Amino acid sequence: MNIILFEKNELNVDYVLLQDHRAKHIVKILQSKPGDSIRIGVINGKIGSGKVLAIKAKYPFKVKLLVNFSESPAPPPAIDLLLALPRPIMLKRILSQVTALGIGTIYLINANRVEKSFWDSGILKKEEYTPHLIHGLEQAVDTRLPKVVQYRHFRPFVEDRLPDLIPKYQSLVIAHPDSKRSLARCLSKDVGKVLYAIGPEGGWVDFEVEKFLTAGMQPFSIGPRILKVDTAVVSIHGKISHEIEGCDASEVAA
Amino acid sequence: MNIILFEKNELNVDYVLLQDHRAKHIVKILQSKPGDSIRIGVINGKIGSGKVLAIKAKYPFKVKLLVNFSESPAPPPAIDLLLALPRPIMLKRILSQVTALGIGTIYLINANRVEKSFWDSGILKKEEYTPHLIHGLEQAVDTRLPKVVQYRHFRPFVEDRLPDLIPKYQSLVIAHPDSKRSLARCLSKDVGKVLYAIGPEGGWVDFEVEKFLTAGMQPFSIGPRILKVDTAVVSIHGKISHEIEGCDASEVAA
Repeated sequence: MNIILFEKNELNVDYVLLQDHRAKHIVKILQSKPGDSIRIGVINGKIGSGKVLAIKAKYPFKVKLLVNFSESPAPPPAIDLLLALPRPIMLKRILSQVTALGIGTIYLINANRVEKSFWDSGILKKEEYTPHLIHGLEQAVDTRLPKVVQYRHFRPFVEDRLPDLIPKYQSLVIAHPDSKRSLARCLSKDVGKVLYAIGPEGGWVDFEVEKFLTAGMQPFSIGPRILKVDTAVVSIHGKISHEIEGCDASEVAA
Repeated sequence: MNIILFEKNELNVDYVLLQDHRAKHIVKILQSKPGDSIRIGVINGKIGSGKVLAIKAKYPFKVKLLVNFSESPAPPPAIDLLLALPRPIMLKRILSQVTALGIGTIYLINANRVEKSFWDSGILKKEEYTPHLIHGLEQAVDTRLPKVVQYRHFRPFVEDRLPDLIPKYQSLVIAHPDSKRSLARCLSKDVGKVLYAIGPEGGWVDFEVEKFLTAGMQPFSIGPRILKVDTAVVSIHGKISHEIEGCDASEVAA
């Protein structure tokens, strides 16, 4: 936890009273004392500092903070993820990892090789997945909660919803082993806002790839190595953000 | 498991008898029958196909394969990792993930913020960490086992060993939040062979960074977000391999 986050409705004018794992973290890990300042943020709001007013350092832990908001969060990430629903344990890890890396929206969609039972998992409930997103924000020192959108049927998503999404992005790319093109060639010159799609274990089936390409997505290859979904999601996020950083750098230089 | 791997000494002229988790995988997951062919490889050797000669489909599982080697493995990865020893559970995940992504050598070193107890972990024994490397190879369809080298003392490594390593690389980079330079600017134009260094949770201390810079390593920033070590290792591997792919593409084009 590199920042202590709370909901806006936890704020009481200019102080907040924490009584859960966050209070425990302040007591046990940060070992804060009254008078100390710690980094705080409001979910989907500003970042600032919290001055410790009072502490109860034994279970049940309590910490009262006087809050002062000074910074707006970083601009929203320029990368969105379209992900065939992975197995629940992997989804949890991916949610916190991509949130830490910076992601705007995560579209979870069905695919032929997605196990049907994955859609029954509790992790798809907002109250279950949100803590994993917050975990990523706490790691990265951010307050912007990514959006999670779920489409349980492939065809309605790709035929009805995807065409509306396409114009929102400058680059739309789909990892596909059969492609001969590298990612760099698929991203538009200014990169812009990027949607990247990662298939299920075993990959997309031909019908799905065709649908994505018809909709206007560009296939790219990451080479002959087969990666697990979570490794692919993080590694390809790295590649895309690297291109974006390169564009930013050349803008600064210009 | 996208390839069934075995040691050279398991080969009996032109067949191999499997009686462990690999046999179980062939029976239960691949559901192979006599006559089927499956992808096989010798660790640090060639890739080929194994024709199922006989199967015992009940516990204890047995599979006898007639082997035929046709391909050499991909060229060795151009990326090596210098990693401050992370906690054992994270190290396991990192070992299999970077092996899947493609890594030549993993240097595990000590640092001020590495917990001393991590060096007592069983995972540092060859027989304990090798299965995690093999797991990565099985995922990526590769046979080249990365080297794992351990340095339990920071100063002897950085003063005595690192100077010998420096000339082997065209790019030597170290992730460091204080740097203002992006990774792209630190990699040499041809990228070449890359060593990238990732610090412990909480980062390198100033003394350590100074030692790396004095030795000739280039600091780079990945922006203001703080990442967990495993996320940083995979994401930055993605960035570096993206630069390498870009170089390869431009060479082809030239």
